[in-house]
Amino acid sequence: MEITLSVSGMTCGHCKSAVQDALKNLSGVTSVEVHLDSGKVDVVYDDALVSKEDMEEAIEEQGYDVVN
Amino acid sequence: MEITLSVSGMTCGHCKSAVQDALKNLSGVTSVEVHLDSGKVDVVYDDALVSKEDMEEAIEEQGYDVVN
Repeated sequence: MEITLSVSGMTCGHCKSAVQDALKNLSGVTSVEVHLDSGKVDVVYDDALVSKEDMEEAIEEQGYDVVN
Repeated sequence: MEITLSVSGMTCGHCKSAVQDALKNLSGVTSVEVHLDSGKVDVVYDDALVSKEDMEEAIEEQGYDVVN
């Protein structure tokens, strides 16, 4: 499965790494690409193992908001 | 001694931490306060142990510019 999340508040390379690492640490997430300029985050994942809600929670724990 | 440096490129809390930690790791630096909104960094230091140039180098190594 592939999803694109919209994340607000990412301003720099550290922010990018924080979101990337948080998502990659979720079991079931196989690939993460963060686009700082647009705030878009592309995630490839196995929906038997991880949900969109899990991803949103991981991102929000890092201090960023997921825009729906 | 006390100095205020102007640093450009710090956008978020991670940036603040990166600059703060880099300066605190210099021997002779006793206190660092980063103001994200203004880009000002207040440093208390012993000028027998560390110079303004050392601080600028430490900040630039983290990817930020010191404005003179």
